[in-house]
Amino acid sequence: METELSKQLGIEHAIFGFTPFPEVAAAITRAGGFGVLGAVRYTAPDDLARDLDRLHELAGGKPYGLDVVMPAKKVEGVTEADVEAMIPAEHRGFVRELLARHGVPELAEGEASGWRITGWMEEVARGQLDVAFDYPIKLLANALGSPPADVIERAHDHGALVAALAGSARHARRHAEAGIDVVVAQGYEAGGHTGEIGSMVLVPEVVEAVAPLPVLAAGGIGSGEQAAAGIALGAQGVWLGSLWLTTEEADLHSPALTAKLLAAGSGDTVRSRALTGKPARQLRTEWTDAWDDAAGPGTLPMPLQGLLVAEAVSRIQKYEVGELLGTPVGQIVGRMNSERSVRAVVDDLTRGFERAVTRMNRIAGRSAT
Amino acid sequence: METELSKQLGIEHAIFGFTPFPEVAAAITRAGGFGVLGAVRYTAPDDLARDLDRLHELAGGKPYGLDVVMPAKKVEGVTEADVEAMIPAEHRGFVRELLARHGVPELAEGEASGWRITGWMEEVARGQLDVAFDYPIKLLANALGSPPADVIERAHDHGALVAALAGSARHARRHAEAGIDVVVAQGYEAGGHTGEIGSMVLVPEVVEAVAPLPVLAAGGIGSGEQAAAGIALGAQGVWLGSLWLTTEEADLHSPALTAKLLAAGSGDTVRSRALTGKPARQLRTEWTDAWDDAAGPGTLPMPLQGLLVAEAVSRIQKYEVGELLGTPVGQIVGRMNSERSVRAVVDDLTRGFERAVTRMNRIAGRSAT
Repeated sequence: METELSKQLGIEHAIFGFTPFPEVAAAITRAGGFGVLGAVRYTAPDDLARDLDRLHELAGGKPYGLDVVMPAKKVEGVTEADVEAMIPAEHRGFVRELLARHGVPELAEGEASGWRITGWMEEVARGQLDVAFDYPIKLLANALGSPPADVIERAHDHGALVAALAGSARHARRHAEAGIDVVVAQGYEAGGHTGEIGSMVLVPEVVEAVAPLPVLAAGGIGSGEQAAAGIALGAQGVWLGSLWLTTEEADLHSPALTAKLLAAGSGDTVRSRALTGKPARQLRTEWTDAWDDAAGPGTLPMPLQGLLVAEAVSRIQKYEVGELLGTPVGQIVGRMNSERSVRAVVDDLTRGFERAVTRMNRIAGRSAT
Repeated sequence: METELSKQLGIEHAIFGFTPFPEVAAAITRAGGFGVLGAVRYTAPDDLARDLDRLHELAGGKPYGLDVVMPAKKVEGVTEADVEAMIPAEHRGFVRELLARHGVPELAEGEASGWRITGWMEEVARGQLDVAFDYPIKLLANALGSPPADVIERAHDHGALVAALAGSARHARRHAEAGIDVVVAQGYEAGGHTGEIGSMVLVPEVVEAVAPLPVLAAGGIGSGEQAAAGIALGAQGVWLGSLWLTTEEADLHSPALTAKLLAAGSGDTVRSRALTGKPARQLRTEWTDAWDDAAGPGTLPMPLQGLLVAEAVSRIQKYEVGELLGTPVGQIVGRMNSERSVRAVVDDLTRGFERAVTRMNRIAGRSAT
């Protein structure tokens, strides 16, 4: 699976893996792919430095990247407290009542909620970049639009390519105009924030919209046959996030959540605003049902919803409250049925890709060597 | 594009085209694909016979099929009048008010509404089959679950394969158990009634669920690269419906609707219950918005909604009321940007497929002849 982009990055397979775990990112890179560490969960620069140290050490000299969440537009002078003050009492009461009904215990005193709004704010993302550029990252990806122009320039000076996610051809065109190098076309099937255009339709639209920029296909890819489909659609590689969540190297800190992911089918996710206020695909749970229920107060806009539910989500995760326990994941969860090593997953992807190409040659009436 | 299934049917390309127009079905067949005439709009058996005569004559001895809408379960003794009586006055008022607000004229006296519930009832579908089996149809497809056992047997005795649409692996497995021969795996991107699993995820799930039965990939396919993706996912061919709507051989009887289809982007459809009471992808219009609006009365369950809106839809179509004018169509509508002949469309599909295979061989490091 060798494309112009994989050659440019010096990797064996055009398989890009996005993950919050440095061990997983390193294993993807070691297996011949390209590991991308998600930075959104790091609020303290030191924590990110520690995990980048680990990733760098484990990657053994092979290339890796970082994914940040950086808005192109700056919101000046708004603090977390300002945002907190905008949350209606009704919504706070709804959270309290929902947690009480399911008997979710309180956090111990001093335990911070795991997910804060701060990871989404530009100053935090810039702090992460100051750390990241101490490492030889070869790709800087941004999940929230194009990064600001000075960040793109800084990445280029550093020798890193800049990638941005797009859920529509319009978004992709905007990224291209901003000067990024790679577009990740992420279809409706994907986990996390995602649009409404399915990968089958989105990927070729984005390829045409930004040609000759390279495009990675994301959303619904969990097998080599699906990777082959992404390549058939014109992509120069595939970008996978969900599939790594149940690898042996991943540590969700929750056996119950891992078990849920292994058991879930492709129909067990929902595109809901419950987590952040913007539609994000995740496991469907009684928690998402409650937020999506017309009888409830409904969700708040981003970033209010994320701040409103941050502590609740931490409590649900810590105490593994089964019926509420969820996580962002794509429809490909239906294929995540066993815990395997990252290398086994990558090998499976490349073998499936080869199988698909062989079958396609047969159907095209060609003999290939 | 030759697969076991295309060989079995004696066609050149494993491209299956579903269409309400006999001229289009015949042209697909003549171009080397397999044309399938949709029967749902025929309430009078004579009309179906007339169009099958036409299809048979134009197909020039090459194979074609028929698509019916036949429920596996029989609803005994329910008449259209019974169903009419179940529609709340509030909903009738909402339709009246909506049409009046947009100045939609009444139909002339004696003009029947084009779309009736009757096409969905088993006795009508059975009447269609009595007609259809006078023709050498090679495929009988059912859009509403598996056909009843006696219909499958009759089709087999007639020498026809039986196909059924599935939006999930569970549906597909049920079809296989019922004894059908081909499963059409139709993803979220598709026009008309469709589920929530994207084609990228659905197709391989269905392939695995019903192996060794052949599967056709449907939903989001409008180019040869997309056809190649469907094949990469394990399908033995592709099933396209939307793409033919803007061919030269199609006659929508509405220049305004054709213009709307040609102008629409992939983001201009919505999966709405407005048309039939079940989620069906269609152009998003002020009509679908009104039904999907939380402030309105909402849609009724199938078959009430279809009966409720049948005349209104006819009026909107006849008078081409732009802002309300819609039709079932998939996200692939974004690629339907010019009126082309069916042959040009099929040639484009096969050329694109060849291009995709060539590119994939390069990426797999193979040379093929």
